[in-house]
Amino acid sequence: MLKRDDLKKRLSAILGAEHVHDSNEMKLAYSYDATPNYQALPDVIVSPGNMEEIQAIVQLCNETGTPIVPRGSGTNLSAGTCPSEGGIVLLFNRMTEIIELDADNLTATVQPGVTTETFIRYVEEQGFFYPPDPGSMRISTIGGNISENSGGLRGLKYGVTRDYVMGLKVIMPNGECVVTGGKCVKDVAGYDLTRLMVGSEGTLGVIGEATLKLLPPPESKQTLMAVYNDIEAAAQTVSEIIAAKIIPATMEFLDQPTIEVVEDYAGVGLPTDAAAILLIEQDGPSEMVQRDLQVIQRICQAQQAIDVERAKNEEHAEKLLTARRVALSACARKKPTTILEDATVPRSKVAAMVQAINGIARKYEVQICTFGHAGDGNLHPTILTDARDLEEMKRVEQAFAEIFQKAIEFGGTITGEHGVGMMKAPYLKWKAGSSGLNVMQSIKRALDPKNIMNPGKIFQSNPDGEMIAE
Amino acid sequence: MLKRDDLKKRLSAILGAEHVHDSNEMKLAYSYDATPNYQALPDVIVSPGNMEEIQAIVQLCNETGTPIVPRGSGTNLSAGTCPSEGGIVLLFNRMTEIIELDADNLTATVQPGVTTETFIRYVEEQGFFYPPDPGSMRISTIGGNISENSGGLRGLKYGVTRDYVMGLKVIMPNGECVVTGGKCVKDVAGYDLTRLMVGSEGTLGVIGEATLKLLPPPESKQTLMAVYNDIEAAAQTVSEIIAAKIIPATMEFLDQPTIEVVEDYAGVGLPTDAAAILLIEQDGPSEMVQRDLQVIQRICQAQQAIDVERAKNEEHAEKLLTARRVALSACARKKPTTILEDATVPRSKVAAMVQAINGIARKYEVQICTFGHAGDGNLHPTILTDARDLEEMKRVEQAFAEIFQKAIEFGGTITGEHGVGMMKAPYLKWKAGSSGLNVMQSIKRALDPKNIMNPGKIFQSNPDGEMIAE
Repeated sequence: MLKRDDLKKRLSAILGAEHVHDSNEMKLAYSYDATPNYQALPDVIVSPGNMEEIQAIVQLCNETGTPIVPRGSGTNLSAGTCPSEGGIVLLFNRMTEIIELDADNLTATVQPGVTTETFIRYVEEQGFFYPPDPGSMRISTIGGNISENSGGLRGLKYGVTRDYVMGLKVIMPNGECVVTGGKCVKDVAGYDLTRLMVGSEGTLGVIGEATLKLLPPPESKQTLMAVYNDIEAAAQTVSEIIAAKIIPATMEFLDQPTIEVVEDYAGVGLPTDAAAILLIEQDGPSEMVQRDLQVIQRICQAQQAIDVERAKNEEHAEKLLTARRVALSACARKKPTTILEDATVPRSKVAAMVQAINGIARKYEVQICTFGHAGDGNLHPTILTDARDLEEMKRVEQAFAEIFQKAIEFGGTITGEHGVGMMKAPYLKWKAGSSGLNVMQSIKRALDPKNIMNPGKIFQSNPDGEMIAE
Repeated sequence: MLKRDDLKKRLSAILGAEHVHDSNEMKLAYSYDATPNYQALPDVIVSPGNMEEIQAIVQLCNETGTPIVPRGSGTNLSAGTCPSEGGIVLLFNRMTEIIELDADNLTATVQPGVTTETFIRYVEEQGFFYPPDPGSMRISTIGGNISENSGGLRGLKYGVTRDYVMGLKVIMPNGECVVTGGKCVKDVAGYDLTRLMVGSEGTLGVIGEATLKLLPPPESKQTLMAVYNDIEAAAQTVSEIIAAKIIPATMEFLDQPTIEVVEDYAGVGLPTDAAAILLIEQDGPSEMVQRDLQVIQRICQAQQAIDVERAKNEEHAEKLLTARRVALSACARKKPTTILEDATVPRSKVAAMVQAINGIARKYEVQICTFGHAGDGNLHPTILTDARDLEEMKRVEQAFAEIFQKAIEFGGTITGEHGVGMMKAPYLKWKAGSSGLNVMQSIKRALDPKNIMNPGKIFQSNPDGEMIAE
């Protein structure tokens, strides 16, 4: 690795000095992301303005063995954009353009730095629909969403970011630009590099441009809230709805501890003694939505929901969904440190998993609120704690390890939508197995032999920045 | 590589002699697939009965450097299952079980050898829906569909095989078993090995089991045929339908030469002087289907369709779709050799591409019928020729090369759903670029350093079976 001054000089020659930063303030600002308890300083922060500049940066880093941490808005919750071994943080704040909306082919082409909400709003104004809606969409970037394969509330019916990436321009670790996929709905020319890049968390290259799939917008939507005295009944409702051949756009779940915290925060009138709440939204042609909602309502009632409320209008629907949307903020104000996880299980195991999580909370004497996407089994057990309380943090760690283990036992995964990052790198083997981890590491080594791309993420590094051999 | 006798002996020890074949008849039977003009003998043909046997076979082949050609029903059209360097052909005719249908999680788990139609029929009987419907579905296998990432008529609305593979058990070239994905709708634990395997054409490992996503079945469907005097108007119809925010389940296209050949074969009453026919099917809730069909009908009329016929019932719909389904058979009886290609372009370029193909047919004096999936730009220019006429075959080759070039020029791809195989390996660079091909080869080398898995497919081999360095 170059000395910091030389690195800065050569980066300035590529970008202009005004786009290369190494003040203490800037280094501190980019020493962490949205994940609690991870922090390390980078050497330099750079803001390239185009693909050619990214290419020159990557070439320089490859030549000099300098780590690169690509970073959108840093909203990920797995320490995926936290520096770990110095090097540069690569920002996309100068690459925020929506390059094209191609109505004929239902695609949009964007630079990676555009925020998810800006993009969604733009395509909606043009009469289209882009479904992936991660919780952080107000500030997250499309490039970040692609790197993390972000999910969201609409994942059950519409899938995740992966399902909407049709093509990419990627700067590979050797500095070459690879163009994957394109605007064709069908394309089987060689390995699926597009989907290999999606969710690779910046460890295989830098995404410089993306072509995304759009849909026609749903004609209408309707929202319903069902309140339960029994978690099992809420979970059974989810199963019965699927069994009735209905796939709602959204089926969100809040457990009792979450309901209490949310009501305390937002005062939306939730019954704080209820065991669980389901928030269900269906969209599509209005006749179909009406019909589906009637069936869903009947199922909720048959499952002994103590209250079933249908939104009277969009405003009312917004109010109902607020309960889910504020869950993280509501948790965050309870205790200094909020750790939000995303252990995920097959849909049929949601009730068992929530019960297991509550048992684990009791066992380790930690406070866990569980909410999340019941329809796709993507739960968010959230521990309210205090990072300064080292003794409690030890128990928190043990509790999470047991939650991951339980998820795997139920045929699930250690992460449904947050990514592995540094946070879950020690647990990846539980899901992928030695042989799977071995395959992933072989790919990483083949494409990034110097381990310059976001080292320490997905795979653990040793102190020299080398991947720890499995 | 072992001597053939030793190889046979060791394979027999693994499988039992009754599942190891090297008679001349068997070697001849597996010396070719559905692709015209490719043929080479394997040394041995084996039929393992379970994952453990596959594993033992792969370990033996890895140890001895023996090529493995995994083969479902050999229906692919890119010489993807044709031996090229001897070795073994690995069949799945003893692994045809549907292991589980999980109604709660909307998944099915199958062995690779089950045929697509058997599987589709089974899930339909159970009240579910598996959309990928490749043309060869009556005999193709699910394992083959996954290896080729097969498409089909319903790709426009429902996507391709890739979109329905949730998890795999794969025997890697080193003999290790990797379990990818699972039943979770959301799963971002490391690289997306599931989708890396889908469409990898048997070059990265042997698929031993697959977990597939199911959907609730559409409630109803309707079919419509529109006849045009002008290709441009047919293409414009496709664009206008998409612009009206309607995504039909199917939008199939036949050009004039195809119409003539089909009518001659099937006598379904097609107007043989028409320039183009569109066959459009929509499915979903019946109110929506009714509404969509009305809009589609109006668009067809506004685009000067000379005839628009709506199917009166399912039987009538079947009759209309027959025209499209028999296209390949109809072509095949015209000339001794039928070469079906699948150059694919963005939807907006369909008319331009069809015109380009017709120009190329005139230039090289070859007979080309073009039909295919207009909705997703996946065209099937089909040359009717005679492999024994070497002079014409030269022109056929030139014509196809120019068709691929044109597809790339239009932002398309050399193959939409047939795969690269041996047939299109020389052209892959046109689509992927040197840098993209380089990335794919790096992955191949990292995972299969001895190049035992289906050598010569996707990447060209030299006579020693080594990949030709790009």
